[in-house]
Amino acid sequence: MNAVAAPSPSAARATDTLAARYATVRARSVALAAPLSAEDAMVQSMPDASPTKWHLAHTTWFFERFVLGTQPEYAPFNADWHYLFNSYYQSIGPAHARPQRGLLSRPSLEDVLQFRSRVDQRVIELLQANALDPQALRQLELGLHHEQQHQELLLTDIKHALWCNPLQPAYRDDLVSRPGVAAPLEWIHSPEQIIEIGAPAWPANAAFAYDNESPVHRVLVPAHALAQRPVSNAEFRRFVEAGGYREPGFWMSEGWSLCQQEHWQHPLYWDDALAREFTLAGWRAIDPDAPVCHLSYFEADAYARWAGARLPTEFEWEAAAAGQGTAGNFADDGRLHPSAPAHERPAGRHQQLFGDVWEWTSSAYGAYPGFRTFEGNLGEYNGKFMCGQWVLRGGSCATPADHIRPSYRNFFAPSARWQFAGLRLAKDAA
Amino acid sequence: MNAVAAPSPSAARATDTLAARYATVRARSVALAAPLSAEDAMVQSMPDASPTKWHLAHTTWFFERFVLGTQPEYAPFNADWHYLFNSYYQSIGPAHARPQRGLLSRPSLEDVLQFRSRVDQRVIELLQANALDPQALRQLELGLHHEQQHQELLLTDIKHALWCNPLQPAYRDDLVSRPGVAAPLEWIHSPEQIIEIGAPAWPANAAFAYDNESPVHRVLVPAHALAQRPVSNAEFRRFVEAGGYREPGFWMSEGWSLCQQEHWQHPLYWDDALAREFTLAGWRAIDPDAPVCHLSYFEADAYARWAGARLPTEFEWEAAAAGQGTAGNFADDGRLHPSAPAHERPAGRHQQLFGDVWEWTSSAYGAYPGFRTFEGNLGEYNGKFMCGQWVLRGGSCATPADHIRPSYRNFFAPSARWQFAGLRLAKDAA
Amino acid sequence: MNAVAAPSPSAARATDTLAARYATVRARSVALAAPLSAEDAMVQSMPDASPTKWHLAHTTWFFERFVLGTQPEYAPFNADWHYLFNSYYQSIGPAHARPQRGLLSRPSLEDVLQFRSRVDQRVIELLQANALDPQALRQLELGLHHEQQHQELLLTDIKHALWCNPLQPAYRDDLVSRPGVAAPLEWIHSPEQIIEIGAPAWPANAAFAYDNESPVHRVLVPAHALAQRPVSNAEFRRFVEAGGYREPGFWMSEGWSLCQQEHWQHPLYWDDALAREFTLAGWRAIDPDAPVCHLSYFEADAYARWAGARLPTEFEWEAAAAGQGTAGNFADDGRLHPSAPAHERPAGRHQQLFGDVWEWTSSAYGAYPGFRTFEGNLGEYNGKFMCGQWVLRGGSCATPADHIRPSYRNFFAPSARWQFAGLRLAKDAA
Amino acid sequence: MNAVAAPSPSAARATDTLAARYATVRARSVALAAPLSAEDAMVQSMPDASPTKWHLAHTTWFFERFVLGTQPEYAPFNADWHYLFNSYYQSIGPAHARPQRGLLSRPSLEDVLQFRSRVDQRVIELLQANALDPQALRQLELGLHHEQQHQELLLTDIKHALWCNPLQPAYRDDLVSRPGVAAPLEWIHSPEQIIEIGAPAWPANAAFAYDNESPVHRVLVPAHALAQRPVSNAEFRRFVEAGGYREPGFWMSEGWSLCQQEHWQHPLYWDDALAREFTLAGWRAIDPDAPVCHLSYFEADAYARWAGARLPTEFEWEAAAAGQGTAGNFADDGRLHPSAPAHERPAGRHQQLFGDVWEWTSSAYGAYPGFRTFEGNLGEYNGKFMCGQWVLRGGSCATPADHIRPSYRNFFAPSARWQFAGLRLAKDAA
Repeated sequence: MNAVAAPSPSAARATDTLAARYATVRARSVALAAPLSAEDAMVQSMPDASPTKWHLAHTTWFFERFVLGTQPEYAPFNADWHYLFNSYYQSIGPAHARPQRGLLSRPSLEDVLQFRSRVDQRVIELLQANALDPQALRQLELGLHHEQQHQELLLTDIKHALWCNPLQPAYRDDLVSRPGVAAPLEWIHSPEQIIEIGAPAWPANAAFAYDNESPVHRVLVPAHALAQRPVSNAEFRRFVEAGGYREPGFWMSEGWSLCQQEHWQHPLYWDDALAREFTLAGWRAIDPDAPVCHLSYFEADAYARWAGARLPTEFEWEAAAAGQGTAGNFADDGRLHPSAPAHERPAGRHQQLFGDVWEWTSSAYGAYPGFRTFEGNLGEYNGKFMCGQWVLRGGSCATPADHIRPSYRNFFAPSARWQFAGLRLAKDAA
Repeated sequence: MNAVAAPSPSAARATDTLAARYATVRARSVALAAPLSAEDAMVQSMPDASPTKWHLAHTTWFFERFVLGTQPEYAPFNADWHYLFNSYYQSIGPAHARPQRGLLSRPSLEDVLQFRSRVDQRVIELLQANALDPQALRQLELGLHHEQQHQELLLTDIKHALWCNPLQPAYRDDLVSRPGVAAPLEWIHSPEQIIEIGAPAWPANAAFAYDNESPVHRVLVPAHALAQRPVSNAEFRRFVEAGGYREPGFWMSEGWSLCQQEHWQHPLYWDDALAREFTLAGWRAIDPDAPVCHLSYFEADAYARWAGARLPTEFEWEAAAAGQGTAGNFADDGRLHPSAPAHERPAGRHQQLFGDVWEWTSSAYGAYPGFRTFEGNLGEYNGKFMCGQWVLRGGSCATPADHIRPSYRNFFAPSARWQFAGLRLAKDAA
Repeated sequence: MNAVAAPSPSAARATDTLAARYATVRARSVALAAPLSAEDAMVQSMPDASPTKWHLAHTTWFFERFVLGTQPEYAPFNADWHYLFNSYYQSIGPAHARPQRGLLSRPSLEDVLQFRSRVDQRVIELLQANALDPQALRQLELGLHHEQQHQELLLTDIKHALWCNPLQPAYRDDLVSRPGVAAPLEWIHSPEQIIEIGAPAWPANAAFAYDNESPVHRVLVPAHALAQRPVSNAEFRRFVEAGGYREPGFWMSEGWSLCQQEHWQHPLYWDDALAREFTLAGWRAIDPDAPVCHLSYFEADAYARWAGARLPTEFEWEAAAAGQGTAGNFADDGRLHPSAPAHERPAGRHQQLFGDVWEWTSSAYGAYPGFRTFEGNLGEYNGKFMCGQWVLRGGSCATPADHIRPSYRNFFAPSARWQFAGLRLAKDAA
Repeated sequence: MNAVAAPSPSAARATDTLAARYATVRARSVALAAPLSAEDAMVQSMPDASPTKWHLAHTTWFFERFVLGTQPEYAPFNADWHYLFNSYYQSIGPAHARPQRGLLSRPSLEDVLQFRSRVDQRVIELLQANALDPQALRQLELGLHHEQQHQELLLTDIKHALWCNPLQPAYRDDLVSRPGVAAPLEWIHSPEQIIEIGAPAWPANAAFAYDNESPVHRVLVPAHALAQRPVSNAEFRRFVEAGGYREPGFWMSEGWSLCQQEHWQHPLYWDDALAREFTLAGWRAIDPDAPVCHLSYFEADAYARWAGARLPTEFEWEAAAAGQGTAGNFADDGRLHPSAPAHERPAGRHQQLFGDVWEWTSSAYGAYPGFRTFEGNLGEYNGKFMCGQWVLRGGSCATPADHIRPSYRNFFAPSARWQFAGLRLAKDAA
């Protein structure tokens, strides 16, 4: 439709690469849904979670609206679906109420998969024809990162949904676990220093980062120490056995209220015997050496206080992570559960900063100095949630490996327990 | 398959008939679910409603538990399902929380249909082998009536579920409507009289009736008059247009609170233009001559007060219905929506007492003098709900035709709007 | 002060009598508030209860609005108070939200008492001058009965308020109790009969009755038996000890939910040792022979079922009460707590039908055939509450003795526990 | 009673001074309650607010428990009151539920005032006898600061209580206002700098500060600009008139939900005409030049975004305030309402950093690096609330003048509107 000049060979290669990456990311969502029936894909077990089908549709809507929608002639697959699959973009219209996403028997999973195919086909055609303008390309790039976020949520949401069913079926029966050993706790000390935090603002800078990671700015990080690895299940179990869930002195006031009201007695998916836990592979023995997970901020914070330590700030975490690679146990590893460290690291080096479990920090989620939201409708992406949430860092066993960065800031309400979230201890310099 | 003695010819005929009736009733539930996808069959749009799949499973559980369960060697299809598909029989164990029935992606619809097949096969074998003792046969009889109740709920629940979906799809596209004319309102007068109300207690008496219909007892019914037909859509629309939903003087105190809180402005499935209504066939023009339906008790009562009349007592209704046949527009007619009268009746005769719409009475649902609940676990069937509910009479367009009786007492909370419930006016003798 | 013609001697005597009665009733409310501080008089411990000060003001507002308000020249004491002290008369304007009556530090108790004095002075002047027209006189009559109802509520509400204070102070320290003996349970049988229920409609008939007691109508009451006295504390304690609060089989479904949710384990004001109870005189030993009270309908009904009996209908109760005087332990006796019978009655005679405790009946509160609400604004007095409530009969130890009648129908929600409500057993004829 | 050595003259002078300060602070609370009746002093208009009487009693309990309670022979005034007037110190026992403080008609205001007198008398005796050990003296010091916090809450709570009464009476009729002029908005720029934030930890350091202000630590504050004065009523009114309360784009997601749910249309105490506001002196015309107040964090943040600016961090605020005196319009000024600036300041100088209105910052309330809670039971004072709250700085017209410091950190939930809270704009360096 556009009388565009033939792309140069290198541009053609770039769009080929992008098309391939698009196809890969998009196919992975479908693959994640493959073990589920259409009925499974419809369950919404709490207002915070969404059905698998909704994740599949909403991520597709994102590309339809923000990529295909930039094409003047584009007619949506089904105009009525805009309302259904908009999540929270108020500037582009009202949206179906979040707690009622589980009522959507129509469109069917099959219809949604067809919607995906059609949108994907068209996007790839446009990519191959080099027909997308820079704004559309940026929105496509953002859409791929957005889809990866939903891939993780799809897993944590379906885990919760299956656990809510009294039959408590497994998501997959073929997941393997990996043994390992958690070394004794070791403190790694850092002196006071000024460091650069964050990532240069995209798209001005070519490497993608969310708006909430920018701009790069200088922060004075005080002298402190960080544990070399996350808190393990064995360690957390000692807290439980020591009465940690019955002693208000370890808890934030709001956390203690919640703990009592919801009758928390241990991490979300543990059994009362503290022996087994519900995983995406069903019920399994708790690995004492693996990082503890499915903690709320309140539980992580209470544990740290009980242990005579504290949570790290997000700056302390990023300082530790900055120099490292991002290798770790990610969704790509196919275990979909945190593992104990597979091999020892040299003394003085951190373990498991990336993957396994998101690490709660003591940093309330807020704007960096000079923060600007993305332009246009996508300004609603991150900024409007900078209130009442806490930063988590490092990614988890359910995060796609190429989705993480040292500067990546995840955020959840302090009451949230259904994510793969654990903690690493910190303390002030003596 | 059981080496039982050959039954006598007449007993054999009776059980053949029963087996045939069993097969018919059971097949009808499956047929009602046929237009729905597995996803549709899972939706629970409010705590008062249940998913289609749950209806299919729960009615089967009833036969498994109360018929097959009387056989010493019987092993349940799946022991874990007892908890899932028990509704409210506390004496036989805890049950899955009602508001969470919509989370049950497992068992699948397919598994539930297989459960039905297996149970049906075994029940029919036992019937054909004449192997069920009298208690099991009584519980089977009750199970058939129970299943018919759920057939109606299946329809009203799925109607609500589809309406809650912003796409508002039809349950079926092939439903026909039937034109007719509502004659001008006419009053039929009755003098004071003592009448016999209710049905003889089953199973002592062979004809089935629920425990709440018994015993037969004498009631003094004062002089009064009843309208010859239910209130029509056209009549109710005048109430709406006259501001009936904005004037507290017509309403019970609790009803007025609810009306304001829920922003009621017209019957549940009408549009704001008072021109169209949502039906099992999708959106349709409102037939002015058809009986109004989907009213709460509060709306029915307010209308009656506005019209200078009142709701009838259940005794007045039964007095009018006693001498009549039970012909009417039932689920078997295949319209699944109330219709205007097809032809005129002789003056002085009631119309549409049966079928079309349940008629709210002014009678609070309670025990008749001498009331005894069914024996054993099934004592929980009706008695424990005799509080805070109102009696409705006559069946509706969603009721199986052979499920109704003049003595039949349906009951719902006064706030319930999702049933096919309307009203017939009554007034005191001048 | 008005130059009215001198009334005839007999009319003068009638109005003198009325003025005296007015003064007596009105003074009694003030006397009931006398043991309370201004702070006590302001407490609202739950939405269903009102502060003492509000009772004092609302009953005065009633006379101001419906008696003085009929005088063309009358200016209200304070026009802003109309909104504050209207209870639920929607036809004469909006009212302060019920749950917020406890926030009214202004007007002060002193101001309210002054309001009472002023209104009383003016009403008595008008009465003495014979200046009230028949409608005003009728509304005055109604106002006196209304005030007596609030006198009982004042007592039950302040009892609850003081009990909610962790210090649990007594309302009065000078209340005496009276010993007695509850005779063994005896059944008094009645054959089927048609009786006249209700009272002739006032004001057409001179004797006062509420609209909900009229018209007199014939009811066929089936053969049955009633216990000769209410259920005693000792009897109810056996129900508690037998696990009555832990066994769903005795309870209405809604009652069982409430029982679990609110952790009911015994009557409202009993201690967990089942030995002492909170009374208007503070904590006291439970008298085993006195009638049990502070039961909800659900508890009364569950007890009756456990005891192999049932609650009486309001017609059975009225049939028993019709031939008797209304003597009993009323508020005038000054004990303000139920007592055991002081002396034996002849065999075959009922005891304590009047006074001591209101008796829950199995009758849902509804309209009698031919029911008409009072005319005008006062039509809201009773009729709009005929939904979801149960009838209680006979008055209690907190009811003014001259407020009760055999036809008197009190009504409360089945969950209400803070009234002096107990039960008398009934059973069907064998 | 203690065989203590005679104090040195200077120590005697110190305790004389402390006794005088104690007497002054304590008398001020009583004076604040003087315009109120016992009934006014009992109102609790929302769970977040407390009755005046409770403030008077709780602050006294604090001295009884933490000062007199250190004396071995001390018997509490009334042992039952410990439960009533403990606020949230879980380590020393359970406490009366906060939302039910308004039910406490007993003890009476008079009893509470007597409680105050007795405790005060004993404390002063001990001070004059130099009989308090260092721990008791520290707790007394803390108690005085604690009492001053409650003095401010007493005012904001009673303001809300009186406003909730439909009569909306004034707290005092004799409050004067002060005219002034708000100069045009001017930006004061600061370069990037490392500054020392906070106060040295008390009691190691003699000058009092709360634990949450310590330790002093270095913070890198980026280049930025601050407005020279708070946002005025006139400015905020333009935001309202421009539709600021109807446009989600200016709001945090949670704030927008709240704004819609609570139907916010303007600051809490403004009328819908945007012309008058409710003050402690009753309804008054809004002074366009005075700082806007009674904003939630969400409103302050939305305004800032609309204005193309942002809220300052608490570090930016403290950097501006550090060099200045703390003069301002405080409770001691007797106006009890924000005023416009009385006179111009030199260019480049901030106005009204102290007094008038608390200024919302963008800083979530959390621990400073190296934070330690107070020792012992008082460790619950501040630390356990470091979750979900925002820091406000500078004090208000309801704060005692000698209660404020540049390092002082007040904190409230972002939804709180009933404090005298406004904002000052900030922006990033260009």
